Amino acid sequence: MEPRPGTRKPRHHVQRVKQRAHYEREAIHAILDAGMIAHVGFCVETQPGAIQPVVIPMLYARDGDALLLHGSIASRLLNRLGEGVPACVGVTLTDALVLARSHFNHSVNYRSVVAFGRAVLVDDPAQKAAALERLVEALIPGRAAESRAADRNELAATKLLRFEIEDASAKVRDGGVKDDAADLALPHWAGVVPIETRYAAPQPDASMGDAGLPASVRALLAPGARR
Amino acid sequence: MEPRPGTRKPRHHVQRVKQRAHYEREAIHAILDAGMIAHVGFCVETQPGAIQPVVIPMLYARDGDALLLHGSIASRLLNRLGEGVPACVGVTLTDALVLARSHFNHSVNYRSVVAFGRAVLVDDPAQKAAALERLVEALIPGRAAESRAADRNELAATKLLRFEIEDASAKVRDGGVKDDAADLALPHWAGVVPIETRYAAPQPDASMGDAGLPASVRALLAPGARR
Repeated sequence: MEPRPGTRKPRHHVQRVKQRAHYEREAIHAILDAGMIAHVGFCVETQPGAIQPVVIPMLYARDGDALLLHGSIASRLLNRLGEGVPACVGVTLTDALVLARSHFNHSVNYRSVVAFGRAVLVDDPAQKAAALERLVEALIPGRAAESRAADRNELAATKLLRFEIEDASAKVRDGGVKDDAADLALPHWAGVVPIETRYAAPQPDASMGDAGLPASVRALLAPGARR
Repeated sequence: MEPRPGTRKPRHHVQRVKQRAHYEREAIHAILDAGMIAHVGFCVETQPGAIQPVVIPMLYARDGDALLLHGSIASRLLNRLGEGVPACVGVTLTDALVLARSHFNHSVNYRSVVAFGRAVLVDDPAQKAAALERLVEALIPGRAAESRAADRNELAATKLLRFEIEDASAKVRDGGVKDDAADLALPHWAGVVPIETRYAAPQPDASMGDAGLPASVRALLAPGARR
């Protein structure tokens, strides 16, 4: 995840609004751990010389400097991705609307990561089972122990990919409105409106009767908890 | 946005879990209108024969069957995108965690669109100003009239792209848990936990004094309103 030596402008170096850029592993991991959906992009040759980009939204779990991805064993696109073609993954979280006095200075507070790398297929059943467990834990911590691990047939039906991050950058905007000085006299309201993502009242499956909520779900609903 | 004639498996046809797929314009537009961030993917030739996918998170506004995108006039990546190279855009909204009795059947309720097309540069200042207005309105309806339109310098500093959707598909999962019959006897809790995205208390810019909130922001905070 370090800039490659000898390249003046590495592919992951943010070129625009550079003060928003971060390359530290810790900043990148924190955003990846807060996100839920990755948009995975790669290029497919649809006919000789014709290149088509494809972007697929996928759940993921971070494992060190890799992202675990999964899908159906029958997915042709995941087959292609798992061949180790160059891929690019985007994860973005939106934190607030930034409402300026001018159209031009409207913005959004956000945290995003763009990561470059390649995916490899994971075939080993034990590794696949462990990855599925991590994917459940990424969705909701503590849940893997509260549900049945994958059996042999389920593992056989699952394609598991490990996307190794080769380099990545994070981009973050936070803070307040940045209006032009000349606009401050305008009669328009300016300010920040936070966007909050929270969990609402759980809907137990019809078969559940009046069983209590498990610890993992109770933790999602604790005061102050947020996605 | 219709399947291209003569192609047996168009690029936008969902191959996996086909009952979740939608191709109607109305379904696709509704998801695009509910989203805020698009992940825009395209392919860059970094050296002869070496193709690198790039995914960029961008704000957008839908205009008919096109998405308006913008960025700095100095962006090299947007220059490349605006040359009309094949592009792919993903927009994804997450609605709920689906917690099954098995790791394998865990899922997420979501709405996503994957759209294929090409972007063209918009140079005309009046069209650019109108597009910036639409981008502000997409962020928060009613806000364009509450803030200053872009001036000549701001328009000159803005690169505006119009991504024309050639074909697209939506994929939606909703509803409840789908557990295997044999798992129903397990002692694990199963159910759906909705994810809600809402706006929190606005933070007026320090310069605002005690001015009241404008109508656009009040509408965001109305009971039942959600992103």
